[in-house]
Amino acid sequence: MQEEIISRLSEIVEDKWVVTDNEGVSSYAKEHTMDSYKLVAPEPVEGCVVVKPKNAEEISKILKLANETKIPVVPKGGKTALAANAIPDKPSIIVSDERLNKIHEIDEENLSVTCDTAVTLGDLVKEMKKHDTLYFPLHPGDEGAHVGGMVSMNAGGVRAIRYGVMRDQVLGMEVVLPNGEIVNFGGKDGKLLKNNAGYDLRHLLIGSEGTLGFITKVVLKLVPEPKTKAILIMSYEDRGSAFRTVPALIQAGVIPQAVEYVERDQIKMTAKDLGENWPATDDGKCDLIAFMAEEDEDTLYEKCELVEKVCEKHGVLNIWIAESTKEQQSILDTRSHVLPSVEKDIVDMPDVTVPRSKLAGLIDEIDKLADKFNTRIPILAHAGDGNLHVFILKENDEKPDYFDELKGSIYEATIELGGTITGEHGIGYLRKNELKKQLSITEYEIMKKIKEAFDPNGIFNPNKFV
Amino acid sequence: MQEEIISRLSEIVEDKWVVTDNEGVSSYAKEHTMDSYKLVAPEPVEGCVVVKPKNAEEISKILKLANETKIPVVPKGGKTALAANAIPDKPSIIVSDERLNKIHEIDEENLSVTCDTAVTLGDLVKEMKKHDTLYFPLHPGDEGAHVGGMVSMNAGGVRAIRYGVMRDQVLGMEVVLPNGEIVNFGGKDGKLLKNNAGYDLRHLLIGSEGTLGFITKVVLKLVPEPKTKAILIMSYEDRGSAFRTVPALIQAGVIPQAVEYVERDQIKMTAKDLGENWPATDDGKCDLIAFMAEEDEDTLYEKCELVEKVCEKHGVLNIWIAESTKEQQSILDTRSHVLPSVEKDIVDMPDVTVPRSKLAGLIDEIDKLADKFNTRIPILAHAGDGNLHVFILKENDEKPDYFDELKGSIYEATIELGGTITGEHGIGYLRKNELKKQLSITEYEIMKKIKEAFDPNGIFNPNKFV
Repeated sequence: MQEEIISRLSEIVEDKWVVTDNEGVSSYAKEHTMDSYKLVAPEPVEGCVVVKPKNAEEISKILKLANETKIPVVPKGGKTALAANAIPDKPSIIVSDERLNKIHEIDEENLSVTCDTAVTLGDLVKEMKKHDTLYFPLHPGDEGAHVGGMVSMNAGGVRAIRYGVMRDQVLGMEVVLPNGEIVNFGGKDGKLLKNNAGYDLRHLLIGSEGTLGFITKVVLKLVPEPKTKAILIMSYEDRGSAFRTVPALIQAGVIPQAVEYVERDQIKMTAKDLGENWPATDDGKCDLIAFMAEEDEDTLYEKCELVEKVCEKHGVLNIWIAESTKEQQSILDTRSHVLPSVEKDIVDMPDVTVPRSKLAGLIDEIDKLADKFNTRIPILAHAGDGNLHVFILKENDEKPDYFDELKGSIYEATIELGGTITGEHGIGYLRKNELKKQLSITEYEIMKKIKEAFDPNGIFNPNKFV
Repeated sequence: MQEEIISRLSEIVEDKWVVTDNEGVSSYAKEHTMDSYKLVAPEPVEGCVVVKPKNAEEISKILKLANETKIPVVPKGGKTALAANAIPDKPSIIVSDERLNKIHEIDEENLSVTCDTAVTLGDLVKEMKKHDTLYFPLHPGDEGAHVGGMVSMNAGGVRAIRYGVMRDQVLGMEVVLPNGEIVNFGGKDGKLLKNNAGYDLRHLLIGSEGTLGFITKVVLKLVPEPKTKAILIMSYEDRGSAFRTVPALIQAGVIPQAVEYVERDQIKMTAKDLGENWPATDDGKCDLIAFMAEEDEDTLYEKCELVEKVCEKHGVLNIWIAESTKEQQSILDTRSHVLPSVEKDIVDMPDVTVPRSKLAGLIDEIDKLADKFNTRIPILAHAGDGNLHVFILKENDEKPDYFDELKGSIYEATIELGGTITGEHGIGYLRKNELKKQLSITEYEIMKKIKEAFDPNGIFNPNKFV
């Protein structure tokens, strides 16, 4: 990066908030993707500078400088993204949000929480635990994720079945547009339940993967916390039966907070890594985990009985129930740790999503592909949400030669079943070519023009999916 | 309209689905706005033709013809809009959606209903009554509204407090883009809970007021219907106390389906018009109506008791409870009929919206304005949603000379309190100038470029808010 630029950045944020040394910069030039999916992730680029502004005004000045000099800007949050969504591809100003990290307000009258962008999911969970009636209902995975990033990525997680995704939680936000203008979506305080003043730019920013503006503050909805909880584990001999159970539960009137699908060998290995015991001890090959939460004990028991009844119709082997907080926490911890446990064996992990009722159909297709390529294709799934994480495994620690064909076939089967190539992780660099298979040319061209409307100089997280 | 165009339209849809006679056309060239707000609504334009295609393919052909000849196209649904949102301002092809009127599927596994665009709210309510467990949770007013229009307008109604607005109900849709291309948002069947493949064009269409594309099919979420219901009416001596009660209810942990605010003289007059009795018979000046709905009777009673306790702290005069279906229906009918009853006295009805906690503050400002202009300013409110309908009254059957100043002051006070100039009715023609007061120049320019991205020839419901 030119000295002059570094010097001007230092004037904006003070010297000590500008990072130029190789090691310091390279830790910001990457994200989780590059640790885990080395065989498909892009190479880190050199010549970047990292800058750590303290507020929206400083970010605005940085963006004005970037427009003037046509130097790319890459926003950086918790670095937990999984599809190379905010990786610089040429020398860029990497703008870290880390100093904007305050929870401003929990508003019990408007049921909202106002957070700076770099508040982590972990911070938010911790803060909300102090409130015994309200909570933030999503938990999209890594607690190191920043809320601004979670919004920008439209993160999902395990509870879309009942609460939706990040998109459904955002009341308002403060954003620095690529031209440096600071705007508020959702009214000055971002707390409106209804707002029909023009096109909804807020929903364009949500899920834009950091290509349309720098989110500096978000106002999220809070909901009453259900008073009683239980976790059921249901074991199955085969994937198909497990996945056929999920829509049947919904049809029977059970809407758990989440229904997760795990494969027994993976979850047992993960439990072992953590020194925990996995409750399901029979010969099942896979388990569903239903996270039940209701207003009162009677309703909870009633719903749990209904789950048993439905599962029995769909070939369940055994059902375990975890009522104590300790047992429940152990299950949660184990489930959360599956991905870190298996990542070392993976080339890539498409997070394809179909309507819930099409899950079993997609699994049949994936089983056929495993046969065709003579490999195993393990799966982890937010089954209640129709969202699979499909593990394409390494062979001899390398990318197998059928990788592209297998990945393409998984995407094609998904789209054919009314699905999408990504339910959670976004397009980023990893799925850039595949996006064009899912969209029409007109849709893609509209997206490109939207990008131009926000960022006419093309300086903001450039060369991503648009 | 030129003969050649009429002849080409007839080839697309058959002669009998083309309307050219003055009376026939003029009934399509207007909407509810023009009957009710004659003093501010635009004049109907002459020289239009109405065409009634049977499906998306015919609409596509019409749009291609329009692009070729640069003739404007105005989509037309239930004609229930309230801000002159889809009124032709020059000779146009008015495309009525009325033949696309089938409910295709209620899907209990994916909790969705798939409707053609012209299915009315009334049709949907009726169809869902046949299902005892699931229902469509919104009721945005006029049952003649078409679902496609409700989505295009992001209709609200009385239940945003618990369920959100139309935007929050849309899983997917089929849309004919202005260039004639037919696309699906939300996967092929529009049933995805998670989808992060690029910018969310679906949310741009929602609330676009028919400026970005012709919505031909929508897939809406369904939710379990609460099993027990009650309606509470709470009377107050003054508006301020009533509005201060609303956020206090939420803070106490009560989230009714809706909390409505009515003024006693208006609701009594409406009840009289309908031959009903309004239950609140004391000397109160205004009433809150809380629509309570819970999973079981115990919870319902518990919540109703909590409402009483909170209201007593906030100066309630009396509380009435309606438990029988008949009493509840009478209250619902009366409340629904307030607007038709008072419309004859109104010049305009800004539907300003603020965060719920700012309602009382906005009311104070409105009371001051009433004093300043020596007039009455009655209000009807979806109080739980922070959404007011402010009635600016006629004087001697004319628009008062302070009209523009009063309207402008209401908007300014709203924006200052973190609000929006329209929570429900949209910008349309009536609020076109005011939109620019709420948005920054950059935001407005981005919206104009989005419009150009979808509709480069500017033929689709042109000259509206962008």
